[in-house]
Amino acid sequence: MKLRPLFPSQETLGIHTDLYELTMLAAYFEAGFDEERATFELFTRRLPAERSFLVAAGLEQALHQVLNVHFPEAILDWLRTLDVFRDVSPGFFDYLRDFRFSGDLWALPEGTPFFPHEPVLQVRAPVMEAQLLETYLIASISYQTTVATKASLLCRAARGRPVIDFGSRRAQGPQAGLLAARASFIGGCAGTSNVLAGQQLGLPLYGTMAHSFIQFFDGEKHAFEAFQRSFPRHTILLVDTYDTLRGVRNALSLASPPQGLRVDSGDLGRMARAARTLLDRSGHHETRILVSGDLDPEKVKALTEGEAPIDGYGVGTNLVVCPEAPTCDLVYKLVERIHEGRILPRMKISGDKASFPLRKELYRLREGREFLGDLLAAEGEAAPAGHSSLLVKYVEAGEATVDLPGVRQVRDDARTQMAGLPDRLWKPQGEPYSVRHSPRLEEAERSLRRSHL
Amino acid sequence: MKLRPLFPSQETLGIHTDLYELTMLAAYFEAGFDEERATFELFTRRLPAERSFLVAAGLEQALHQVLNVHFPEAILDWLRTLDVFRDVSPGFFDYLRDFRFSGDLWALPEGTPFFPHEPVLQVRAPVMEAQLLETYLIASISYQTTVATKASLLCRAARGRPVIDFGSRRAQGPQAGLLAARASFIGGCAGTSNVLAGQQLGLPLYGTMAHSFIQFFDGEKHAFEAFQRSFPRHTILLVDTYDTLRGVRNALSLASPPQGLRVDSGDLGRMARAARTLLDRSGHHETRILVSGDLDPEKVKALTEGEAPIDGYGVGTNLVVCPEAPTCDLVYKLVERIHEGRILPRMKISGDKASFPLRKELYRLREGREFLGDLLAAEGEAAPAGHSSLLVKYVEAGEATVDLPGVRQVRDDARTQMAGLPDRLWKPQGEPYSVRHSPRLEEAERSLRRSHL
Repeated sequence: MKLRPLFPSQETLGIHTDLYELTMLAAYFEAGFDEERATFELFTRRLPAERSFLVAAGLEQALHQVLNVHFPEAILDWLRTLDVFRDVSPGFFDYLRDFRFSGDLWALPEGTPFFPHEPVLQVRAPVMEAQLLETYLIASISYQTTVATKASLLCRAARGRPVIDFGSRRAQGPQAGLLAARASFIGGCAGTSNVLAGQQLGLPLYGTMAHSFIQFFDGEKHAFEAFQRSFPRHTILLVDTYDTLRGVRNALSLASPPQGLRVDSGDLGRMARAARTLLDRSGHHETRILVSGDLDPEKVKALTEGEAPIDGYGVGTNLVVCPEAPTCDLVYKLVERIHEGRILPRMKISGDKASFPLRKELYRLREGREFLGDLLAAEGEAAPAGHSSLLVKYVEAGEATVDLPGVRQVRDDARTQMAGLPDRLWKPQGEPYSVRHSPRLEEAERSLRRSHL
Repeated sequence: MKLRPLFPSQETLGIHTDLYELTMLAAYFEAGFDEERATFELFTRRLPAERSFLVAAGLEQALHQVLNVHFPEAILDWLRTLDVFRDVSPGFFDYLRDFRFSGDLWALPEGTPFFPHEPVLQVRAPVMEAQLLETYLIASISYQTTVATKASLLCRAARGRPVIDFGSRRAQGPQAGLLAARASFIGGCAGTSNVLAGQQLGLPLYGTMAHSFIQFFDGEKHAFEAFQRSFPRHTILLVDTYDTLRGVRNALSLASPPQGLRVDSGDLGRMARAARTLLDRSGHHETRILVSGDLDPEKVKALTEGEAPIDGYGVGTNLVVCPEAPTCDLVYKLVERIHEGRILPRMKISGDKASFPLRKELYRLREGREFLGDLLAAEGEAAPAGHSSLLVKYVEAGEATVDLPGVRQVRDDARTQMAGLPDRLWKPQGEPYSVRHSPRLEEAERSLRRSHL
């Protein structure tokens, strides 16, 4: 029986996209536009619900696509069988056979906070190359950005106590769990339960036991004893399978104190307090208390502010699915056509979906380390004195130009960056952050709008 | 520069799980429980928001894991380096080296509607094997079930007009888009824009063009002409880049009528009507009108009921991320320990999270084809006259016992099944569907509860 796991792979990156990217490529090719260049920017027009900023993440996976996308012969053979391509000239498939990304790519370093209209990534390349990347780029950056942002809010609410990603089973498919583990670490989490993420990225791994483990034994205490025999230095016991306080007492009756207890149900603050009291009375001051169970930033904040004796939080669904804001609505928009070396500004005009043309630089004005406001300016326009653009060139003429930092470095950089966010932006609907457009961008926008009236 | 794409793979299925699955395995192993067997059931305790049923999907990907999970030597070498396993005996890693699933697995066929407390999948196996599968099984079934259910609601609202998955870019990572394409087809969608899903599963592919394609040309009409030259039999033109009705007129001015128009913004019903009028006046009765742009079941229903002349709907975020109900909260719970051939019932008791012990059969009572109510009974308990359990044994002693139907067959089966859903269940909060437990299940639950008082 052939079962399809539906794994993404390097060999299928060329078709891991929307059909319209490929039909547009064919039309560009047949229109003789294979030498024409364009610039696209990835940004959001508005913040998701309950967000006053976003934290950029997912660049490493996006760059993997950009630097590896190609069309193996077997994929080309399959594409040729599609009826939609029946009238397309064979030369198009020769073009795809040789397809490699040859353009330039700029992006905000992962962990950088950003705001509406600010490009998180920019591609300048032959239009066909830049277009093909769209679907996968959005999916890569959008999801990790969603999770890194949520993690930052949870960690802020936990005020230094570790928050751990427990969400793999709740993620929207197996890869999402893996991506969420990475992104939540970037956003400030201490680690993850996802073992594969640990293996791939060196993330700290956390885990305890399931209720089923307790139930399998005849009696909770036997289960605790068995676990402690195997993990004498890593015994974190789940105490709420039958009755939380009885569970704590069973944990206290072990030959040596466990390293930690986990409470997964009930009034977490009250249970933590009662457990702490019992632990302290027995002199088990070193035993930590972890809690989990439908935690979100508000609940974590309430527990932290209520000074519940909690040493760590495990978060699942609310971190990795992020139900209140499960997407950050990034769009990948054409901002320039480059025709015979001349840059022609481009933008979408209809409805309320307007955007600004031209490739932009992003300047962040600060007082001390606190962000005062951002300025978007056209490429080549004078920078505010003493400032350099936050956008970094990661790819030039198809080649990587800088090494990416490891995920631990990204996390440290993110923490430094986020320390500059004004306090009001940590609230769900704070006074919005100022993002201004330079005179040259405003003039380009007005002029393009006039030309379409 | 080494870039990690974070692709799931067959070689890493063993560690594509939560750490606690592996620590529990080690504790079971060292407790001498490697021959002990158990039964786990996957079910939900409550329906997500705005749902009165769920549609099972994701079994094929779940079975791929179950039948292929193993631990290559390189993975074992890495696991041995983890501090958490420092006190675990080397024999455990020998056990993992030989790990293959040797148990039995039952499930609802994909496309079957199901309700709270009904097992969508059951595993009976050595407890260590059954436990390891948990995280990946939940992630596989939960997400596709979420999307298949949402697709069924969108298709119902569209009353026979095709609904197409356009969500790949909005999905929570690249694999999620692929899984969503499959699940939405099972739920009734006509096809997807995801080319890789088309290649892997033979799904019908749909696509048009992006606004950027129009903007790239000097003038909308030149873009339309170029596209039609390449796709004379598949020309679907996006008409709202600058001004929708002007876009329709540009489409009408082409040498031959396009096969379709797509409207992606504005008042979709009003725009569709205006476009239809212009098309009909020009005798272009064959040109279809597709709409997209933030569609959900309510908007589709309003358009359908308003008799807007719309021939198809493209849906993105609302289908694949499913913001109002992005997870269906499946749990994988121990229901039996099998000790020396004797079945010992098991259940979690604490709080409001109670469930019923023992492996169950599921009977669906009908009047004609309409579902009247379901009955859960213990394995071996007498079935209602003339009924057989909806649960199918897919794996016996580690071997697949039946071939899975292809995804088109699953979709047909799903349509037949869903035709039996009472009308009230198509409403977000209909009168709940009756799911009864047999006397033997109720007695087993009461008896277990008493024994823990």
